[in-house]
Amino acid sequence: MELLPRDQIAFQRMLDTIRQVFERFGFLPVETPVMELSEVLLTKSGGETERQVYFVQSTGALGKSAESGGGEGLPELALRFDLTVPLARYVAEHEHDLAFPFRRYQMQRVYRGERAQRGRFREFYQCDIDVVGKDALSPRFDAEVPAVIAAVFERLAIGEFTIQLNHRKLLRGFFEGQGIEGEAQFAVLRELDKLDKRGEDAVRATLAGDGFGLSDEVIGRLMAFSKVRSQGHADALAKLHSLGTGTPLFEEGRDELRAILVQLQALGVAESRYALNLSIARGLDYYTGVVYETTLDAYPQIGSICSGGRYENLAGHYTRSKLPGVGISIGLTRLFFQLKDAGLVDTAESSVDVLVALLDDAGLAHALGLSQRLRAGGLNVETQLEPRKLAKQLQYADKAGIRFVVMRGEDEASRGVVAVKDLRRGEQFEVSEAELASILQVEREQLRTTGGHGR
Amino acid sequence: MELLPRDQIAFQRMLDTIRQVFERFGFLPVETPVMELSEVLLTKSGGETERQVYFVQSTGALGKSAESGGGEGLPELALRFDLTVPLARYVAEHEHDLAFPFRRYQMQRVYRGERAQRGRFREFYQCDIDVVGKDALSPRFDAEVPAVIAAVFERLAIGEFTIQLNHRKLLRGFFEGQGIEGEAQFAVLRELDKLDKRGEDAVRATLAGDGFGLSDEVIGRLMAFSKVRSQGHADALAKLHSLGTGTPLFEEGRDELRAILVQLQALGVAESRYALNLSIARGLDYYTGVVYETTLDAYPQIGSICSGGRYENLAGHYTRSKLPGVGISIGLTRLFFQLKDAGLVDTAESSVDVLVALLDDAGLAHALGLSQRLRAGGLNVETQLEPRKLAKQLQYADKAGIRFVVMRGEDEASRGVVAVKDLRRGEQFEVSEAELASILQVEREQLRTTGGHGR
Repeated sequence: MELLPRDQIAFQRMLDTIRQVFERFGFLPVETPVMELSEVLLTKSGGETERQVYFVQSTGALGKSAESGGGEGLPELALRFDLTVPLARYVAEHEHDLAFPFRRYQMQRVYRGERAQRGRFREFYQCDIDVVGKDALSPRFDAEVPAVIAAVFERLAIGEFTIQLNHRKLLRGFFEGQGIEGEAQFAVLRELDKLDKRGEDAVRATLAGDGFGLSDEVIGRLMAFSKVRSQGHADALAKLHSLGTGTPLFEEGRDELRAILVQLQALGVAESRYALNLSIARGLDYYTGVVYETTLDAYPQIGSICSGGRYENLAGHYTRSKLPGVGISIGLTRLFFQLKDAGLVDTAESSVDVLVALLDDAGLAHALGLSQRLRAGGLNVETQLEPRKLAKQLQYADKAGIRFVVMRGEDEASRGVVAVKDLRRGEQFEVSEAELASILQVEREQLRTTGGHGR
Repeated sequence: MELLPRDQIAFQRMLDTIRQVFERFGFLPVETPVMELSEVLLTKSGGETERQVYFVQSTGALGKSAESGGGEGLPELALRFDLTVPLARYVAEHEHDLAFPFRRYQMQRVYRGERAQRGRFREFYQCDIDVVGKDALSPRFDAEVPAVIAAVFERLAIGEFTIQLNHRKLLRGFFEGQGIEGEAQFAVLRELDKLDKRGEDAVRATLAGDGFGLSDEVIGRLMAFSKVRSQGHADALAKLHSLGTGTPLFEEGRDELRAILVQLQALGVAESRYALNLSIARGLDYYTGVVYETTLDAYPQIGSICSGGRYENLAGHYTRSKLPGVGISIGLTRLFFQLKDAGLVDTAESSVDVLVALLDDAGLAHALGLSQRLRAGGLNVETQLEPRKLAKQLQYADKAGIRFVVMRGEDEASRGVVAVKDLRRGEQFEVSEAELASILQVEREQLRTTGGHGR
């Protein structure tokens, strides 16, 4: 996971956009150390995750690992593999210094010791938001989270997207109503999850088979339920209504989903941005309320680009306080490469706005002063410090994605103007030095507003 | 190294400011993976650094370390301990895809396995810029770097500062002129470096003693030289002139320093921001030209807050190309805590600008819509999602550092206005909803311009 500067600029713009939106919604920044105590990390992870942890030892501790550490001969420290475990540890540790509900965002890299392969990264950015309550958390936050997601992806301008909603209580209540209880619910969910891969007939056969022994009628209802998708706000409410009556848990889930839909409308989120999808389940043992997945309408094969949901208790391993929460995570590194493959990442323009050209040594002092005035005017400026042929300088700017080249020969100097070459538009114009910064600013902003995502 | 949100907001503002200035000067972003091959990291480090490296092993590789890895039974991967080695590896690896001179900035955490103690961190941010040339690099970049430093610390608004300049060629040339050659130069430099701690008499005695055997006359000249400090631009040039004539190397160093001073003036850097200090040497075996240290005038005890210099060859271990460069590094984590101790970090204001209060459930839809309109107007907004007593909401905002609380009771609703409490100014006013966003924006910007550093 290492980018050349042009890609890094595009990546940084995405990070900035996401952070700006998170802050717009009142989320506060948190960063945690890359290393956590192994016992903290491994408390929460299953065997699969454990094998993917990177352990850390300082030189002095090498070889001593078997005696000290995590109680099982493991090194004392390990690299975080997600941002959820560090959040749990952070909230538990600083519980008395934080105001609840605690809205935090965290955008850092996480580490997984898996074999590197296409689409899998050993080091990647996660961009998370969570709202964590103490003892209780208003269900109203369940609607704010998809509003944040909608704002993020609108600002990123990577095409139409849909935030898909389901609710674990609706799901569990529905299963209960079909006589499917406890662990069997998970098993059935896992089978339903294979619908796309195995096809309906195969899944039906499994559910009717020895392990499950479900009746055709129940299977039919399961299939119908998990195929529910809505299109538009009114349809979502109508689809919820048409599910008929259910167990108290089912009704609770439905009421919460309704409230979310109503609030999304009050928040002005376009109705094309959200939809019911009663097939999604996510983190079977973790989420307890609403669950979210987000897909790009034109690229369903990319899968969910932003997922999360409501959970009952964040930090049961680290504190006795009950800390319910709701949150989502964007795996930005994977998303970046997928968007790049799909041609949706704009790497055309550099972070440098202007190259101040230098035609001869006599012009150096002026070029330096002019560059500083442009910087004071809010522009990112590179100064050509050694004279070169103008053609070379233009060629360099073009290749580097620098939009404006400012030139000042004897003729321009005598008239108090500079010549500006706009490489993006392929135009050249003259402007007085006094007006230069403000004119380039305006040009830049115009292009930003009309084309692509802002910085 | 973990901050509560208010400190994290202040830290993030510093990071943002530094990054913005780096970009103003045309530096391009680079991020490298936290792990490098152990052999890459250890090639360049001496024994002291080696003991401070954190090695990394995925679970599967634990116990196998003795056979594989860095050739000496070391694990294959380790965490970066600075940003210079990763830059060298990056430039060598991507040499053919980069345009030279390559200006990059990098702001990431680095790791040192030392015992944690006050002022020492095992994980800390470094903010580096470097310009790397291929085969050669114009000496003119040596002046651009202190111009960047000056802009960074002016924007951070942490008080008066001085960028102190010296030149390794001037220094080595001067030693040569005194008959001090080769390794002896380093030894003498190390003794001169102890002037503050040991006092002049003790250092004189050492230099006159068996190990060095320098004459009183030479020692006197060394003392005089290393005490040279300038005040203001003209004085710096005069002090350089008054050093008399020297060896060719000495003259080369002096010419380069002169050129730097002249360019700093052309760049409009205030003359109080830079000064000669012929006692600084830095990284004896690494820097070969100009060297920089930066001190806060009111807090000399903090030491250098930003240091660097010119080096001959960045990546000799990794490529045959000669890659001369010049750069500086800010150890931001340490600086942040020092500034905080000195009361120079403003943690008063949250990143959240506005709390939209909620007086009763009937007001929820309006509060959600209003919050979204304020966000669209560029403000960071938290919505109170469950009604509480207004006093509690104001108290929360005050404690959280949120400046504005927007309230709308029946009376305000009937007149199409909202009431705004400005907690910073302790004032309350009414404004029409249509004007709200723009008025809060203006108020916010005014305060930013007059007080403290911007975001």
